[in-house]
Amino acid sequence: MHHMSESLSINNSSRSAIVLLSGGLDSATTLAIAVNQGFTCHALSFDYGQRHDVELECAKRIADQLGAASHQTISLNLRDFGGSALTDDIDVPKNRDESQMVEDEIPVTYVPARNTIFLSYALALGEIKGCGDIFIGVNAVDYSGYPDCRPAFIHAFEKMANLATKAGVNGKQLTIHTPLIQLPKTDIIERGLKLGVDYGLTHSCYDPDDQGRACGCCDSCILRKNAFEQLGTKDPVLSHLD
Amino acid sequence: MHHMSESLSINNSSRSAIVLLSGGLDSATTLAIAVNQGFTCHALSFDYGQRHDVELECAKRIADQLGAASHQTISLNLRDFGGSALTDDIDVPKNRDESQMVEDEIPVTYVPARNTIFLSYALALGEIKGCGDIFIGVNAVDYSGYPDCRPAFIHAFEKMANLATKAGVNGKQLTIHTPLIQLPKTDIIERGLKLGVDYGLTHSCYDPDDQGRACGCCDSCILRKNAFEQLGTKDPVLSHLD
Repeated sequence: MHHMSESLSINNSSRSAIVLLSGGLDSATTLAIAVNQGFTCHALSFDYGQRHDVELECAKRIADQLGAASHQTISLNLRDFGGSALTDDIDVPKNRDESQMVEDEIPVTYVPARNTIFLSYALALGEIKGCGDIFIGVNAVDYSGYPDCRPAFIHAFEKMANLATKAGVNGKQLTIHTPLIQLPKTDIIERGLKLGVDYGLTHSCYDPDDQGRACGCCDSCILRKNAFEQLGTKDPVLSHLD
Repeated sequence: MHHMSESLSINNSSRSAIVLLSGGLDSATTLAIAVNQGFTCHALSFDYGQRHDVELECAKRIADQLGAASHQTISLNLRDFGGSALTDDIDVPKNRDESQMVEDEIPVTYVPARNTIFLSYALALGEIKGCGDIFIGVNAVDYSGYPDCRPAFIHAFEKMANLATKAGVNGKQLTIHTPLIQLPKTDIIERGLKLGVDYGLTHSCYDPDDQGRACGCCDSCILRKNAFEQLGTKDPVLSHLD
């Protein structure tokens, strides 16, 4: 009882966090959760030469809508490196059903070391801003094919991060928060809707049209479309396809 | 005996490695060691808004001199983040003796999460090029004040890296090589001289003059100057101060 009241009395309002914000459904929900937990949130996005760079505009609008204290976009050069359908001229798979997005296969849309690089920047920004908390919307359920979305990776990164920085050296713990890591897409959307996320502002499509609108048939579109349907509603970003 | 001949027969000539190359004395020596071990070396440098960006020109010349198969410079945006004397307008300490560069103090020239970010890019490039070997010239003797130069950090990064990538998932081990980590500066220079490193091409100074020449009195200049003197010779980059 005493323990419980202590745990309820935790107030994060004086604490700030770095929140990785891609502009997609998962990261928007993650930002809403971090804000709801009382953190002052510094949203961090990356321009890494992704073909779906409309998501960066979305990230900005989502940061505003959800009340992030700041939003910063860092330009990377992953396109120079190549090696992924998201940055290279490899075809994005279309019209697969969820059973084809199998667990032990790594999708061609995988970007090498992407989350490692993103988290490393979050670590740097966190150290400068004095934040001991980083939020990332990785999910091990829908995308377990990505090695850098698994809990074991996140734990290893957290351990490394605590050895990498002054904060770690000085005994201040750095925590990587992954509030979505074990949630099915339907639960993520339900939570986000309760917290007021406007999913019409989000972008998840790997292959948008010239106007930046979702294609409705890449793996990413299908996963969210199915989840909205299971919740008895429709994905607001697919209304142009009705 | 049998074991020894096996170990001597290791031929790395079909293996390629990513070598982080700043253009300084340590990374030049590291590249020479990797080349000498038979690796096809892809050198990787970073333009991170450092005030001593003359080192990037040096890196290019060193990569050529030592026979790297390729050399790539990636632009980062650490200057946007601020927080270090190397990228901010904080004064670089001058004329300190080595006892003042104490072990448990983190120098103001520390760049937050720098090696974490550099190694993350090396990881991405290594995955694309199919390299399971990354070389970094960190040293825990002279710069133990930097948290991300310690063996514990390197081990934790290696563990994380093996969980982060397809290679790790597929059971192919990724190795972070730190051939200098326990060597005093004099030993590093001796090794490099034997391997033909032209230290006149290297640049380590934190605060070079308008012509890019070493100041001779920042911590970095003093450490190498003392080491060359202990070896009974002179640091070739300080000849303009004679």
